[in-house]
Amino acid sequence: MIALTPAPPYYAVIFTSLRTDVEDGYKDTATLMVELAKTQPGYLGVESARDGVGITVSYWKSLEAIRNWKQQADHIIAQQLGREKWYAQYKTRICLVERDYGFEKE
Amino acid sequence: MIALTPAPPYYAVIFTSLRTDVEDGYKDTATLMVELAKTQPGYLGVESARDGVGITVSYWKSLEAIRNWKQQADHIIAQQLGREKWYAQYKTRICLVERDYGFEKE
Repeated sequence: MIALTPAPPYYAVIFTSLRTDVEDGYKDTATLMVELAKTQPGYLGVESARDGVGITVSYWKSLEAIRNWKQQADHIIAQQLGREKWYAQYKTRICLVERDYGFEKE
Repeated sequence: MIALTPAPPYYAVIFTSLRTDVEDGYKDTATLMVELAKTQPGYLGVESARDGVGITVSYWKSLEAIRNWKQQADHIIAQQLGREKWYAQYKTRICLVERDYGFEKE
């Protein structure tokens, strides 16, 4: 699904990751975190794909919304488990979306 | 692969897409466009994954570098073919990467 975001400016968090081979709870937690993100103030949408590398882009109204989500209690636990078990490597990029445009086949 | 980008600020182009079922030349052109992007001035890196939705994030030094890449001749042809044949829908987001941080397992 392509996220239905409002007109810019808004924020994007690009989370790119490489997994370990540890499965233990990963899928359930990933699903739960997406569901939890959707309930956070300032959440605008999410896009996610994995083949080899995983890319999850979440969209937010403001930097404050991103900070709050980063510090949400259950999310903090998931981040710790991520570093201990599920991720070999990741990079998080906080971005201001300045412009967007799209295409849809008729 | 997680792109080895320099310290922010730099730019990201998030290209999220849904494919048609037309294969005709798609893979070759996609590979060629990534190779061509790598030779462009101001190119910093690329990350790409598809399962259902496709997400390709390319990183650039400046908005000018992004504009030049958008108008590169072979890339313009690929964009046209993309709309005619390969993509049911896409969205392009031009972003300023303000901050990043990462993790790597020891």
